[in-house]
Amino acid sequence: MQVIKQRKKPVSPPLVIAGSFILLIILGTLCLKLPIATTTSISWTDALFVATSATTVTGLSVFDPGTTLTVFGEVVLMGLIQFGGIGLMTFAVLILLLLRKKIGLQNRIYLQESLNQNSIGGIIKLVKIILTFVLSVQLFATIIMTFHWLPTFGFKDALYLSVFHVISAFNNAGFALFPDNLVGFANDPIVNLVLSALFILGGLGFTVIYDIYQKKSLREWSLHTKMMILGTIIINVVAVFTVFLLEYQNPATIGNMPLDEKILVSYFQGVTPRTAGFNTLNYGDMENSTILFTMVLMFIGAGSASTASGIKLTTFMVIILATLAFLRQQSEPKLLSRSIRIDTVIRSLAIATIGLFIVLSFIFLLSITEKLPFLPLAFEVVSAFGTVGLSMGITGQFSDIGEILLCIVMFVGRIGPLTLFFLLMKPKKVHYRYPYDQVYTG
Amino acid sequence: MQVIKQRKKPVSPPLVIAGSFILLIILGTLCLKLPIATTTSISWTDALFVATSATTVTGLSVFDPGTTLTVFGEVVLMGLIQFGGIGLMTFAVLILLLLRKKIGLQNRIYLQESLNQNSIGGIIKLVKIILTFVLSVQLFATIIMTFHWLPTFGFKDALYLSVFHVISAFNNAGFALFPDNLVGFANDPIVNLVLSALFILGGLGFTVIYDIYQKKSLREWSLHTKMMILGTIIINVVAVFTVFLLEYQNPATIGNMPLDEKILVSYFQGVTPRTAGFNTLNYGDMENSTILFTMVLMFIGAGSASTASGIKLTTFMVIILATLAFLRQQSEPKLLSRSIRIDTVIRSLAIATIGLFIVLSFIFLLSITEKLPFLPLAFEVVSAFGTVGLSMGITGQFSDIGEILLCIVMFVGRIGPLTLFFLLMKPKKVHYRYPYDQVYTG
Ligand SMILES: [K+]
Ligand SMILES: [K+]
Repeated sequence: MQVIKQRKKPVSPPLVIAGSFILLIILGTLCLKLPIATTTSISWTDALFVATSATTVTGLSVFDPGTTLTVFGEVVLMGLIQFGGIGLMTFAVLILLLLRKKIGLQNRIYLQESLNQNSIGGIIKLVKIILTFVLSVQLFATIIMTFHWLPTFGFKDALYLSVFHVISAFNNAGFALFPDNLVGFANDPIVNLVLSALFILGGLGFTVIYDIYQKKSLREWSLHTKMMILGTIIINVVAVFTVFLLEYQNPATIGNMPLDEKILVSYFQGVTPRTAGFNTLNYGDMENSTILFTMVLMFIGAGSASTASGIKLTTFMVIILATLAFLRQQSEPKLLSRSIRIDTVIRSLAIATIGLFIVLSFIFLLSITEKLPFLPLAFEVVSAFGTVGLSMGITGQFSDIGEILLCIVMFVGRIGPLTLFFLLMKPKKVHYRYPYDQVYTG
Repeated sequence: MQVIKQRKKPVSPPLVIAGSFILLIILGTLCLKLPIATTTSISWTDALFVATSATTVTGLSVFDPGTTLTVFGEVVLMGLIQFGGIGLMTFAVLILLLLRKKIGLQNRIYLQESLNQNSIGGIIKLVKIILTFVLSVQLFATIIMTFHWLPTFGFKDALYLSVFHVISAFNNAGFALFPDNLVGFANDPIVNLVLSALFILGGLGFTVIYDIYQKKSLREWSLHTKMMILGTIIINVVAVFTVFLLEYQNPATIGNMPLDEKILVSYFQGVTPRTAGFNTLNYGDMENSTILFTMVLMFIGAGSASTASGIKLTTFMVIILATLAFLRQQSEPKLLSRSIRIDTVIRSLAIATIGLFIVLSFIFLLSITEKLPFLPLAFEVVSAFGTVGLSMGITGQFSDIGEILLCIVMFVGRIGPLTLFFLLMKPKKVHYRYPYDQVYTG
């Protein structure tokens, strides 16, 4: 990871980020293909798929991890999730710090890109705090879960299951070691609340956590932090309420449950789609309206520089605010006594356009290669793009080509559409300006 | 239509446009509900649905117009299509001109809004040219079609059918008097080429036609005109080619046809979705990939101030150009040695966002009210929003509430999402500016 001092063209940050993920995926595929990793032999495509799914913290799987993977395989899975989720770059800094090496400017720039920070100063401090925070939270949650599962599974299994599911939850991976994911715990408040607290926290984004840690009062929070906290609360309340109403009378899901269970299950299904991917209900049984609503949530995702993917909650909010500002004939979007730069609006437009383009293109391609019904197929692609991992139950039915296409979607979703395009396109600053001409739109 | 001179608050143009359409729809509903309009009694909802579909030049129908409507009913349909398509405001000017009344400033402003023109000067001239052009083209096409259909139907029927289908085609209404729309003419080059030429022309937009008429050489064309001509050619070539490839092996559609027929049918199905709505194939038999592709085309639509709806081709192009400019780190989108203003980009963003919001909301609502499969339902909503009129064959299966929801989508699609929101929201110019704050997106 050390930088060659006299390098003429430093490798671009997007390339380092993408490259790290690819290396981790290759390493994961090789490990999962080892005979000691699985109880039955799996194909290379399946190994690649699950390695990609774990590294990108998606959670889609072509086999049941709990029965197909050995303990070694599960530990590999945990490692991929933890490294993929918290970010390779963050870990690289930890390793350098532990080795007491000086961190070069180029490495700081990579970190800056990967964490979406604007200034290089303080970036090392940020990373230290993030890692301390992450490990403390994971340790704390593991203790709670171990105590909770102790009576059912005994100490050894309770501890092991707790470590796995805490890592999977905090990193928003959505992998579970139970064949029906968390459906068996639909009525267990501790499992529901601890795991959802973990994935909501992980989805806020590290810059938000750092900002809250640094600032003494709520007023000093940056606009970004305020938007993330406010947005997360609003979107989660709306989502929980919507799922509750839409599924209220569906006998295949919550229709026949008592009210308190209806509420708990709706809560979980409302907060999980924006990236977590755990489920306590079968999505194949849900109403089409709930499925469509869930797809929108999956596309939006959670926070920038977090364990989440999708276009990100702030991108979505900026687009909504810009649209409202346009309708009110204001020159810029405003929120909480702050203006948002027009550059940020254009950036959001680009992210959403590319995101929509990717999702539509891959639904299109997969509807050519696969003979699967449309809605479950579209759901699967959006789930892969948002690295969510929810499925209507068709993940095992894709062809090899289909699996590889989904791997690409998960990878692009995780590194972000912009990173991909900055990789592919050569930016050139153009300073000339042509005369303006009117274009009628809409 | 004359303006009361001392009116204190002139009615806003969006209100006049929306109001005219509503009046025409009410009038159409009443006429179609008359016993002399139909061969069998139809419900009020069905009358409203078909009147809305005709006025908004959509072409969706809950009954077969050819068998259910009498000649009187068909003439009503033609009237609604012609007035709805070319625009009530254009006709109002014609009437005023014929009555030799002076056209007041307020009326000129309405016209300006409705035709998307920037200056009031020359607007009357524009309208005169538009009407002369429209009627000449329709007359010319009617003559060709009458000669073509003469041997099959005899003079009277050939003339009547020609008038109806020419009006329906030029206004992009997509209504046909044959029970299977134009499937019976799939192999008839004259019908295919004449009708498609009409609806492509009608979909370019009146400002484009006026610009081409005015300018002596191609170089003098405005950026808008160039974009429309270039965009129409590119999107149609791509669409025809895509339909051809996707359906090539589908035995239910073109799979078993000889090559020349494959090409002709693909041509028609490639150019029809952006607003025309005629079909020479059953959409219920097509591949899911073709259906998805067609939905994207229907959402995009054709030209501003034309007989088309959807977000409009230029809106789509501006969004793509802005995204590419952002990726190239250019400050503004550029095309053909012209820059596009950032205001236009924001306007396009707002139109696309509202369009997407409307489409998703109504698919969501209809998936609650209707027990219909997802893809045909989503297809129907996008078709209504783009006032296209293509259907996978489920239009007759909607509940009364479903029909009314689709009427709202057609109406909103036709007046345009922006017109709707400017009706509902009170614009207030705000000149203060808050301090900027960084928001991380994507
Ligand atoms: K996930
Ligand atoms: K139409």
